[in-house]
Amino acid sequence: MEKKIITISREFGSGGRTIGHQVAEALGIPFYDKELVDQVALESGFAPKFVEEHGEHSPTGSIFSYAFAHQGVHGIMNGLSTADFLWNIQCSVILQLAEQGPCVIVGRNADYILKDRPDVLHAFIHANKEFRAERIVRLYGESEKTPMARLNEKDKRRKVNYQHYTGRSWGQAHNYDICLDSSKIGIEACTDILVKLMKGE
Amino acid sequence: MEKKIITISREFGSGGRTIGHQVAEALGIPFYDKELVDQVALESGFAPKFVEEHGEHSPTGSIFSYAFAHQGVHGIMNGLSTADFLWNIQCSVILQLAEQGPCVIVGRNADYILKDRPDVLHAFIHANKEFRAERIVRLYGESEKTPMARLNEKDKRRKVNYQHYTGRSWGQAHNYDICLDSSKIGIEACTDILVKLMKGE
Repeated sequence: MEKKIITISREFGSGGRTIGHQVAEALGIPFYDKELVDQVALESGFAPKFVEEHGEHSPTGSIFSYAFAHQGVHGIMNGLSTADFLWNIQCSVILQLAEQGPCVIVGRNADYILKDRPDVLHAFIHANKEFRAERIVRLYGESEKTPMARLNEKDKRRKVNYQHYTGRSWGQAHNYDICLDSSKIGIEACTDILVKLMKGE
Repeated sequence: MEKKIITISREFGSGGRTIGHQVAEALGIPFYDKELVDQVALESGFAPKFVEEHGEHSPTGSIFSYAFAHQGVHGIMNGLSTADFLWNIQCSVILQLAEQGPCVIVGRNADYILKDRPDVLHAFIHANKEFRAERIVRLYGESEKTPMARLNEKDKRRKVNYQHYTGRSWGQAHNYDICLDSSKIGIEACTDILVKLMKGE
């Protein structure tokens, strides 16, 4: 089962981004994460920071969605909320990237956006909360909120956003070809499994 | 991450049983599927066929549950419904098997029953309905019902039974260390991945 593209959906702090990066390096193919945000920012006219934050908001998650929508930012939103406007651009950018050739795409509901391409492997990385809490403090530093509060907030946002735009439930095994618990299997072993699957080994 | 025991939860027709059998052969360890049903039958006094059918019923799935309960079959059910009585024996049998040493256990909510043992790898095998429908007709033959109706009925039973006895949602990636779509990855490749994980390779 050789595949060209791999989408990696992940829980915050699970190491999905790191695994995606390692898979891209091992296969010698492009890795899209922040790069994808930058491309959406470029095409939408919004700042990357705004796109990054907003891409994980539920469509009703922020009153700014509607404030912007009413003002018709850039005059091209056609009555769409900011979230819907960004979603449309995100779909378009991901479909274009997939057309360009082999790559690793992390997050951004790419599993759903590329569900009809037979050359894509869809992976989901999850982990227990203790593992994720330790990682986010180590990688992103402390914040005012407790690590558990940060995890719960991110989980809730991704879940609502995913359900709204895909009509699927977040975290369901059926949405993916392979789901791995990085806290049990280990980040390096997850990378190895995905690289082998991509190579058809 | 070397493990001693592997539980394989599976959708009907996904090939989970076949994968479990291959993993057991590759590792040279016992394989429990029908054997487990027989043991529960022996300890409960019910016929294996009855145990097999009933083990997948929801506790409210059959009026016979209560008919039997009121009659106090074998005089040891202590007011439990048949389903609850069998569940208790099933838990006890699975915990005993795990104590005896390395093994592969297919189905029977063993993932939940053994969730507190750190030496167990929990796998879930799922597949798309076309793949499963083709397999059940090929392996189990035609029946009065359409393959899709048979799949839907089994899926519903397992889901309700699992949710009732474990308090978890069926098919959630979080319940398992690894979930594989056998229709995408292939049955042989699923076996290879699980054997390597069990060996800690």
